[in-house]
Amino acid sequence: MNKTIETILNHRSIRSFTDERLTEEEVLTLIKSAQAASTSSYVQAYSIIGVTDQEKKAKLAELAGNQPYVEKNGHFFVFCADLKRHDYIAKKAGKNHQEALENTEAFLISVIDAALAAQNVSVAAESMGLGICYIGGLRNQLKEVSELLETPSYVLPLFGLAIGHPANPSSQKERLPVELIYHENTYQQDEAHVDRYLKEYDDRISSYYEERTNGERKDTWSEQMLRGFSQPKRAFLGDFVKEKGFNRK
Amino acid sequence: MNKTIETILNHRSIRSFTDERLTEEEVLTLIKSAQAASTSSYVQAYSIIGVTDQEKKAKLAELAGNQPYVEKNGHFFVFCADLKRHDYIAKKAGKNHQEALENTEAFLISVIDAALAAQNVSVAAESMGLGICYIGGLRNQLKEVSELLETPSYVLPLFGLAIGHPANPSSQKERLPVELIYHENTYQQDEAHVDRYLKEYDDRISSYYEERTNGERKDTWSEQMLRGFSQPKRAFLGDFVKEKGFNRK
Repeated sequence: MNKTIETILNHRSIRSFTDERLTEEEVLTLIKSAQAASTSSYVQAYSIIGVTDQEKKAKLAELAGNQPYVEKNGHFFVFCADLKRHDYIAKKAGKNHQEALENTEAFLISVIDAALAAQNVSVAAESMGLGICYIGGLRNQLKEVSELLETPSYVLPLFGLAIGHPANPSSQKERLPVELIYHENTYQQDEAHVDRYLKEYDDRISSYYEERTNGERKDTWSEQMLRGFSQPKRAFLGDFVKEKGFNRK
Repeated sequence: MNKTIETILNHRSIRSFTDERLTEEEVLTLIKSAQAASTSSYVQAYSIIGVTDQEKKAKLAELAGNQPYVEKNGHFFVFCADLKRHDYIAKKAGKNHQEALENTEAFLISVIDAALAAQNVSVAAESMGLGICYIGGLRNQLKEVSELLETPSYVLPLFGLAIGHPANPSSQKERLPVELIYHENTYQQDEAHVDRYLKEYDDRISSYYEERTNGERKDTWSEQMLRGFSQPKRAFLGDFVKEKGFNRK
């Protein structure tokens, strides 16, 4: 196994960082890593906002649901879907590209572009000995986040990425069995198959929590998922995304 | 610069592979790498379909717009947004989680989860000396692709990933200037700033094509984007995605 794969397989989210800031050189290496990711038809439909202003970071931490590591880290990135440049070029050329920029395909392209770029940053950061944590919580109050970062139409903040020198270790969370994630040639729908591997997984996850919490917690993955989807999350997002010019059709 | 960052920065899409198949061990390492990526609130809302059946691969190549490297490669993955497992768990528990599974937030979560996993596979593959190419063209005829792969409701194929031993080298495509991709604290909207860096970039891209094609081609990035968005692409997708249970609200 080479070093890169070792780094990838060793991933765990870090939620506690020292005060040490990333150097400018480190930040630039991470941005260059982001840009090296594949991009659909060369569109490069994303932007990265680096938040260094401590007041802004404190506000973002609050908006994300009081996550202290949004405020306290070595560097904080916000990844955005971005078709603003494409809109700008079209308008300057006197063209109306609204329909093409606003459909579901364009939304997918920009979200995927942003995510590929972000994951390159994560792997690059971890290869440098840094820790990372994705912050989907930015979508809790995305309108306020957008205002804070002054993102215009055709720019949609998607998630944050906190990076820094790890202050505390954390453990890995066991993933679903390969048998449930990976399918050969056709999607595996057989319920006996699904039941079998879900049960095995649930048992392992339950034991893991039980051991770690001295029996206080022993919920399975299925139970966690049942809770997580028991209420629609961020129900305002559908409208807000459209307001910003994405996913309209 | 460490090996991992070197690998990341050295990325280029490979569109021509030898006949050498990936070994089972290599495929498993790549799947494990996918699974090690971050996932929103532990949902793991994606699946990977490995297509090894040659007839299916030929059909996919045709559906993707006759891209030969979809058929001829060392291994072919299809990454799918997948909330089917969550729906299954809810139904078994007698719950109706339809609204939570079908909103824009759940769509975003599953698309981002799938993309993060895919980019881990890309980096891992390249670290092993393999080449990769993302295949967004699978969305050209996504209904037919879904039928071919037998993906049910709550499973949406997003893109393919062709992997293999490179047969021909390819060159890197220069990315947008950092000044356009990276913003500090607030989104940079100043038009003089955008104009300046867009022009510099367009000039470089134009010269690059001119040199490579002996003057036959010299289009700028802006011209390529103007062309690319002159017509809505994959306009059926909005409806199809909803039909599959995603992005309904």
